[in-house]
Amino acid sequence: MPQNTAPSASASPSEAARTPAAPAALDLTASSVEITRALCDIESVSGQETLLADLIEQALTGYDHLEVIRDGDTIVARTSLGRAQRVVIAGHIDTVPLNNNLPTRTEVIDGVDYLWGRGTVDMKAGVAVQLKLAVELSDPTVDLTWMWYDNEEVDSSLNGLGRLARNRPDLFVGDFAILGEPSNSQVEGGCNGTLRVEVRAFGLRAHSARAWMGDNAIHKIAPVLNILAAYTPREVEVEGLIYREGLNAVGISGGVAGNVIPDEAMVHVNYRFAPSRTAAEAIEHLRELFDGFEVTVIDESEGARPGLDAPLALEFLAAVGAEPRPKYGWTDVARFSALGIPAVNYGPGDPSKAHADDERVAIAQIDECERGLRTWLTAATR
Amino acid sequence: MPQNTAPSASASPSEAARTPAAPAALDLTASSVEITRALCDIESVSGQETLLADLIEQALTGYDHLEVIRDGDTIVARTSLGRAQRVVIAGHIDTVPLNNNLPTRTEVIDGVDYLWGRGTVDMKAGVAVQLKLAVELSDPTVDLTWMWYDNEEVDSSLNGLGRLARNRPDLFVGDFAILGEPSNSQVEGGCNGTLRVEVRAFGLRAHSARAWMGDNAIHKIAPVLNILAAYTPREVEVEGLIYREGLNAVGISGGVAGNVIPDEAMVHVNYRFAPSRTAAEAIEHLRELFDGFEVTVIDESEGARPGLDAPLALEFLAAVGAEPRPKYGWTDVARFSALGIPAVNYGPGDPSKAHADDERVAIAQIDECERGLRTWLTAATR
Repeated sequence: MPQNTAPSASASPSEAARTPAAPAALDLTASSVEITRALCDIESVSGQETLLADLIEQALTGYDHLEVIRDGDTIVARTSLGRAQRVVIAGHIDTVPLNNNLPTRTEVIDGVDYLWGRGTVDMKAGVAVQLKLAVELSDPTVDLTWMWYDNEEVDSSLNGLGRLARNRPDLFVGDFAILGEPSNSQVEGGCNGTLRVEVRAFGLRAHSARAWMGDNAIHKIAPVLNILAAYTPREVEVEGLIYREGLNAVGISGGVAGNVIPDEAMVHVNYRFAPSRTAAEAIEHLRELFDGFEVTVIDESEGARPGLDAPLALEFLAAVGAEPRPKYGWTDVARFSALGIPAVNYGPGDPSKAHADDERVAIAQIDECERGLRTWLTAATR
Repeated sequence: MPQNTAPSASASPSEAARTPAAPAALDLTASSVEITRALCDIESVSGQETLLADLIEQALTGYDHLEVIRDGDTIVARTSLGRAQRVVIAGHIDTVPLNNNLPTRTEVIDGVDYLWGRGTVDMKAGVAVQLKLAVELSDPTVDLTWMWYDNEEVDSSLNGLGRLARNRPDLFVGDFAILGEPSNSQVEGGCNGTLRVEVRAFGLRAHSARAWMGDNAIHKIAPVLNILAAYTPREVEVEGLIYREGLNAVGISGGVAGNVIPDEAMVHVNYRFAPSRTAAEAIEHLRELFDGFEVTVIDESEGARPGLDAPLALEFLAAVGAEPRPKYGWTDVARFSALGIPAVNYGPGDPSKAHADDERVAIAQIDECERGLRTWLTAATR
């Protein structure tokens, strides 16, 4: 899941010294758990994925059933077995910055075995399962296009999947897509859209010793906060899943100097909206809500409908035996959705542990995810 | 009048080239208007007063009735004529930064003659009148201590008058003080106090895609803005003058990142309070008003009572024939007041033009101020 582009807590100077030396090669015959560990111990904070991409490319080379394609630090591997259908399975290989959470280690908490460390949840466990299956499944029931991409955790303009779609649109052909974002190895369908706007009030500057000669813009922005505080977010059913919306101030600013009546104040608002609403409708909703204030759109990302009515999606749900749930956070499933490819999130790890200092994945979820994907991709029913 | 320490619009690089070369000497036999012009055309933005202080010191030297004392860029000149009473008359020689408003020029607007330029109002016209009278009045009816000081427009810790009071407390002896701050050549008594506090609300961070797991501090600060917007400032009579108070947000901040529910929000509040209220009482008032929120005092300056019941003040009012008015802005009269010396503001210029890009003083007010001070200081009644 993408983080904001604001600076994050960065590693201490001695961090590099404490992380293990990178291996000369990736062993994809190891267990998914061991591959997860190896992937995590190769640091790959956004923008620094080259070493990991090199090792992935090298580990995939030499398999007859796979054509390997590279675009920057994004690696694609695909089969061309003449199957009736093609599935795209993707995951990002970058992480948010470290915060003293490498090397990985195992931990037992309340009797549950975890693999602890940066990237274990978001999303190298998912990538590990995908890499293992990519080389093992030489005879899947559908043709497969695997994508492992860079720069998901930073500004959308840098996103490796977005770049690949621009450089190689021919690769984005498929009947269904699975993104390995953490979803507790359950199927999370679609995602909410997200919209950020700046809401402004204006006034007139004056010296604060003679405030009556001015017009205080910060006082005038009060109704915006009242509207936000009183707002009840919707819960919207889309194709059987309940999406929970959210409308929040994520920033506020105003003020010229300690003795000046301010002539401008701004509330930065983030609206997470159900995928039944387009970004344009979401903007219209905020303009109505903040009528009388200046509303400036900063960025907008369409949501993605669950896509669970696609035939392959129904088969996938049956194979993994999961009850689908909605994805609240925005993910790259929306990119597939926008290209007309129904897509879901399916990966090990609790999303609430993504980016956390105590990021950790339950080891059983890694195995469960591997089992689910393997079962579906090798099922004899097709 | 002091400005905030926040950066101001600064002069363009070519500004220095357009301002006239500084003269080799100040001619204090010229008219007050011409002296004003000469003072303004010697740039002396806070921190850069040395040249002007040198010229003032030089121009005052050699008069038998004046002892000249220097402390940094502050110049003191005093008589010791054995008079029964002593009056302190003071003015600051620094200005706020230029904004293409030098050299000075004359302007006629609606039939009124003005001298236009940085410092004409705040407060070199007042300083010009004072310098002229300092050298001319060799036989005043009271002993005089003239003070021209640096760094009034910046942080209070740099204020030249404050520094002089620390270095030479012996000079702060007097029965009455006049500060030449712009007051339309009327007598403005005392000044409002000023208090700045930060009012905070706290919450709990969460990813904005799952806002219900957090607690939005910006939404929680809404009542503070509602209180400010609904607040009716008092008008308070103190010794016959009506002081108008003011309570304003002068800044607001909050926010972590565009996708994070913020856990802290802060409103920066400035309270201008009548001199009948102490700073401690003002703080107590704000704590009651913002009960339930964290209130942190950032700075406080006591107001100053008008001091118009002092015998010399009454004589002064009679001599200049003015109806006293309250001073809303905080000025250095409060420093004299705190030292037990009743003090008033009396100087040419409309305070609302102080710091303005079109700063300009009505020439008639310069003459009026000179006439008023001269009349009082040479009156035969004492």
